[in-house]
Amino acid sequence: MLSLDSVYRASYVLKEVLRSTELIRAPKLNPESDIYLKPENLQITGSFKVRGSYYKISQLSAEEKARGVIACSAGNHAQGVALAATRSGTKSVICLPDCAPISKVEATRAYGAEICMVTGAYDDAYEKALQLRDEFQYTFIHPFDDEQVIAGQGTLGLEILNQMPDVEAVVTAVGGGGLLSGVAYVIKNLRPEVKIYGVQATGAASMVNSVHDAHIERLDSVSTIADGIAVKQPGNLTFEFCKQYADDIVTVTDDEISSAILAMIENQKLIAEGAGAAPVAAAMFNKIPIKGKKTVCLVSGGNIDVTILSRIITRGLMKTGRYGAMQIELVDKPGQLEGVASIIARMGGNVVSIHHERSSETADVNGCYLRIVMETRNFDHFTEIRNALIAGGYKIC
Amino acid sequence: MLSLDSVYRASYVLKEVLRSTELIRAPKLNPESDIYLKPENLQITGSFKVRGSYYKISQLSAEEKARGVIACSAGNHAQGVALAATRSGTKSVICLPDCAPISKVEATRAYGAEICMVTGAYDDAYEKALQLRDEFQYTFIHPFDDEQVIAGQGTLGLEILNQMPDVEAVVTAVGGGGLLSGVAYVIKNLRPEVKIYGVQATGAASMVNSVHDAHIERLDSVSTIADGIAVKQPGNLTFEFCKQYADDIVTVTDDEISSAILAMIENQKLIAEGAGAAPVAAAMFNKIPIKGKKTVCLVSGGNIDVTILSRIITRGLMKTGRYGAMQIELVDKPGQLEGVASIIARMGGNVVSIHHERSSETADVNGCYLRIVMETRNFDHFTEIRNALIAGGYKIC
Repeated sequence: MLSLDSVYRASYVLKEVLRSTELIRAPKLNPESDIYLKPENLQITGSFKVRGSYYKISQLSAEEKARGVIACSAGNHAQGVALAATRSGTKSVICLPDCAPISKVEATRAYGAEICMVTGAYDDAYEKALQLRDEFQYTFIHPFDDEQVIAGQGTLGLEILNQMPDVEAVVTAVGGGGLLSGVAYVIKNLRPEVKIYGVQATGAASMVNSVHDAHIERLDSVSTIADGIAVKQPGNLTFEFCKQYADDIVTVTDDEISSAILAMIENQKLIAEGAGAAPVAAAMFNKIPIKGKKTVCLVSGGNIDVTILSRIITRGLMKTGRYGAMQIELVDKPGQLEGVASIIARMGGNVVSIHHERSSETADVNGCYLRIVMETRNFDHFTEIRNALIAGGYKIC
Repeated sequence: MLSLDSVYRASYVLKEVLRSTELIRAPKLNPESDIYLKPENLQITGSFKVRGSYYKISQLSAEEKARGVIACSAGNHAQGVALAATRSGTKSVICLPDCAPISKVEATRAYGAEICMVTGAYDDAYEKALQLRDEFQYTFIHPFDDEQVIAGQGTLGLEILNQMPDVEAVVTAVGGGGLLSGVAYVIKNLRPEVKIYGVQATGAASMVNSVHDAHIERLDSVSTIADGIAVKQPGNLTFEFCKQYADDIVTVTDDEISSAILAMIENQKLIAEGAGAAPVAAAMFNKIPIKGKKTVCLVSGGNIDVTILSRIITRGLMKTGRYGAMQIELVDKPGQLEGVASIIARMGGNVVSIHHERSSETADVNGCYLRIVMETRNFDHFTEIRNALIAGGYKIC
């Protein structure tokens, strides 16, 4: 049974391994609210998940610890279980689908877990984990639907109340619902007037749908850049906790999440993964009624692949006018490229790439296309360069 | 006169405005040392610079405050002075060269400063600032060569000793030398056995040269991605302090700084600017003798332009085999592109861009070149794809 007592106990146990993550004021993310971040991306393993798994493993009997634990995950739960087990002197086996990113596999292995790669998708790895559990009597560590795991995540509720006794709203991401369950349970029991909001990705809104329809529903598929909350179905326990304790659960799009990731880089110097940025996205895009309220956005983790990060930054730059492409129709004669280049240089644009192609699609038989990608200061600057080229006699397509 | 007393006073004054930045353990950055980060990139204004300017302004007379302050900077010092002046109810004027990045200009204006854009380079803006100082009796806030500014930066030395009494080495970046002066002065006076190292960029090693030759030298030009420490000449005071108190000052290359920025993103979820990453680069690439030592790397700031950040990430991905290009010579007949694409897909490569060009340079008269940029897991994965294409009968150039 989940109780405040078990959360206090978890809080005590976790002192052995956790860093204390201090709240960081983030005034630029939404100037109409008073936003603070709880940066669990700076937690060991790069996410809050270690809280639940460490507490769960700490409560196992000596015999259970001697047999070892097993989990199925390609993400933060895997790293949390691996580190928690190793620090507790317990063997851990992690089943992963073979499509898992190599960086996460290596990180999990580095924390001391035995890795079991399973051909197929998440469900195949999950089946394999249950099979190994039965065969070797391992204890299965569920990523969210377990009262001790929920108690571990609930320690974040205690920390937030300790660090900011006059907090008015707390916002967390929701995948399976373990984090929201723990945080909402603790805060609503101790300070029921504090508002608690959950945030899901539009492409993986299983808890939103389930709470709305008042019974657990399963999505056929999920699609979001926030892989940490791409969960098809809420847990039985977490569904009940979220339904009872959360004030609302809202959704944000992948574009909103990307903007939040970029805003956190620029304004807070913090790397958040998609799930970690979802509460900030909800605050930035006014999905929740926090105007004028002292609000803590829980940044659940920062384990994002740098290739994806690079794409998000480029997309964010394009959306704010700092990176853009234009296509120019040229007459194919000497000096044309030089003319374009000189105008762009004079206007302070920074050319990233040029593609020059003779084409039969142009109006002039000698025509060709020039596609230029460049860095600019903002949309106005981009437009100024465009206008200067037009004034110089060039035809922009 | 700089004294511990003035640093203690600064520390007390700064409590009004600063966040406390907690040390973060960073075991992956150099497994042979015990590295901790002091994340001043998470400080208000995104850098430590506000410490010196806030303390300096707090010590002005009422009359001086009423007249206002002036500074010349396109970077962290500008934002520090602007915020410090505004919080102290003092007018601030910041002179910037008109080539300054718009994001930094806007940030400085947002902190409440009056902006004076000056045509030309830094030196022109500096001349203009001195002229305005004389005309309006403003107090000039020097970015580093001022004992009160140095006392403000020295508060970081106190904080590090408080947070980690058994620290064995402290590493800071060096531009003009204000940060290293303050930190080294405090720590060597209180705990002389702690080693203090400074780090400069290879392309802006003015303090290294000056200390080596035992007199102040001026560089004709500086070139580094670490714009925060691109300083041509040390200060008179800072030169003396660094010479007396630092154990050594070393240099790191821009490539080493870039690797450190990427490593901090991936392992610590923190954004550092070039200057902020320089101490981490020195630790990662064994430029300083810290093996087995409990070492604090001071991450001085995080104000890096996202367009530069994006380039650093891409460069880092290429250097670790996660982003790469190959050129294939094809016979120009139907089905060739499909064949290449199918091999890459089967091997798990992720195509970013394709450029297909008929060329008279190929051996075959019908030949053409295909240039493919793709994301791969690592160098081995890239080589596997390359070998599979060769086995499939394709000619890699």
